[in-house]
Amino acid sequence: MGDDVRERIFPAEQVARFEQVADVAGILTEFESDAAKRALLETDVLVTGWGAPFIDAGVLDLAPALRAVLHSAGTVKPYVSEDVLERGIRVSTAATANAAPVAEYTVAMIVLANKKVLPIAARYRMLREEFDVEQAFPGLGNFGKRVGIVGASKIGRRVIELLRGYDLDVVVYDPFLSASEALSLGVESVALDDLLATSDVVSIHAPSLPSTHDLVDARGIGLMRHGATLVNTARGEIIDQAALTARVTAGELFAILDVTSPWVLEHEHPLYGHDHALLTPHIAGSLGGELGRLADVVLDELRRFSQGLPLAHEVDAELLAITA
Amino acid sequence: MGDDVRERIFPAEQVARFEQVADVAGILTEFESDAAKRALLETDVLVTGWGAPFIDAGVLDLAPALRAVLHSAGTVKPYVSEDVLERGIRVSTAATANAAPVAEYTVAMIVLANKKVLPIAARYRMLREEFDVEQAFPGLGNFGKRVGIVGASKIGRRVIELLRGYDLDVVVYDPFLSASEALSLGVESVALDDLLATSDVVSIHAPSLPSTHDLVDARGIGLMRHGATLVNTARGEIIDQAALTARVTAGELFAILDVTSPWVLEHEHPLYGHDHALLTPHIAGSLGGELGRLADVVLDELRRFSQGLPLAHEVDAELLAITA
Repeated sequence: MGDDVRERIFPAEQVARFEQVADVAGILTEFESDAAKRALLETDVLVTGWGAPFIDAGVLDLAPALRAVLHSAGTVKPYVSEDVLERGIRVSTAATANAAPVAEYTVAMIVLANKKVLPIAARYRMLREEFDVEQAFPGLGNFGKRVGIVGASKIGRRVIELLRGYDLDVVVYDPFLSASEALSLGVESVALDDLLATSDVVSIHAPSLPSTHDLVDARGIGLMRHGATLVNTARGEIIDQAALTARVTAGELFAILDVTSPWVLEHEHPLYGHDHALLTPHIAGSLGGELGRLADVVLDELRRFSQGLPLAHEVDAELLAITA
Repeated sequence: MGDDVRERIFPAEQVARFEQVADVAGILTEFESDAAKRALLETDVLVTGWGAPFIDAGVLDLAPALRAVLHSAGTVKPYVSEDVLERGIRVSTAATANAAPVAEYTVAMIVLANKKVLPIAARYRMLREEFDVEQAFPGLGNFGKRVGIVGASKIGRRVIELLRGYDLDVVVYDPFLSASEALSLGVESVALDDLLATSDVVSIHAPSLPSTHDLVDARGIGLMRHGATLVNTARGEIIDQAALTARVTAGELFAILDVTSPWVLEHEHPLYGHDHALLTPHIAGSLGGELGRLADVVLDELRRFSQGLPLAHEVDAELLAITA
């Protein structure tokens, strides 16, 4: 993993916990040096993280004892080639742990969006006197509103779970979600156009894949209801940002974006200063103290592996194919 | 109830639903006129709401058939005298329904506060480039943080319920909460000073009573941890606002206030423009579409009453004494 990741997710006190379960050979940031190659030769388990070098067939040839790759973040695709699974090496992801903070951010934003809390706060800050919020923002509130979840990913499912205690009508669009799965999630599965046209909040939880690029295109943005909010914590490329920006600045839609395209918008972008938009710099995922949850999950997987138990969060080839 | 309340909570389509259960005599805004007195003479049930005239012994003398008062908002104290209960007239409150939006607002703000989402967004809006959020706001995140709930009111309890799916350590201070009740809520009951000194977010859910005035005084504000957030959706008078303002403007604390003292702060108050504070104009309670939930609760109570079933949200003298 990258050096900074080691310091953030696996500080000395975390490594000490791992040493109670396994012989920790050291922390590799590359697979090229003689030292790294010597370490790989005897490695049973690789714990990987953001910034880790890619594990391809060549790396596997250097690691004849390797039996498991335990990834301490969400997406494994940038780190493991298909060869890893083909050689019977098991792969685990901390995607579930990483889903928690994103889902929590999303649920908070859905509640605030339905009530127009942030636009109201912005106006209150400007006026500094009471005003008729119901007239200014007709139909506000979290009772009986429709929330559209685009993508029944781990994060999307966690959002659905957390919203169970709320009086909201949650619908989901996901081409890979079966009717029985939707039923067990307790939500209605709908077509994307239907979701966009009927939801008060649309929240994006699809993976970033060629097939999801522009999934919500200009036509889709055009379907959204006047006064609705789009929340995006996934990837900017999934939506047509120019179309969204045009409708937000026209006063028709609201946007809460933790991701944009490009990654940081140009200095003069109109969404920065707009009261109907909130931009955050990619903070919905695990940060700060939340990184401790990632180390906890990997340590738990390592314990399971060392005791011959099934991994809790194993990735198989089918899952690898449809995730980012 | 007040005229505006009638329009907002009981529009014609809601009244039509009530007419399926009872003879709706009309909507009274006072008990003085001859028309009002004639209506009272035959009234079995009064449905009350914000802005309703006070029901004292004199009003009760005019309403010999009165058997129940179903209130469509939270606090009943400003609307019914103790005489009502003493004469065996049953009183019901929609406080539980009114608790839902306040608790939802609060949970959203707790999640955002632990992650410093709004201060980060404010800085991002200013800088318009990525910055090291973990360095700028050390210890951010929602994993293992402590949340202190001041007051196990209906709202406080609902916040506790909604937070069950989160990896947060929730503690509560309430002098009326027994150890067994705390246990059944699944939270630890602690002393107020302890709560203030150890919580990452302190959220106020105490009723506004003479005994809770300045409950979190300047000394209490002084106990709060550097970087902690105070959320207040209850009443401004419960906290020492000057002490809070001083610590927020010094960069030591964060504040999310739906209520202040006075009700609207003076134009030049430093919290309006401060990135570590969010002020909202008393919007956490039922508003807009959420008013439909209040009408639903009262209609449900009316059905129960007409069928001789126990009321779901009955207020007794003991409860009246400790609530606002």
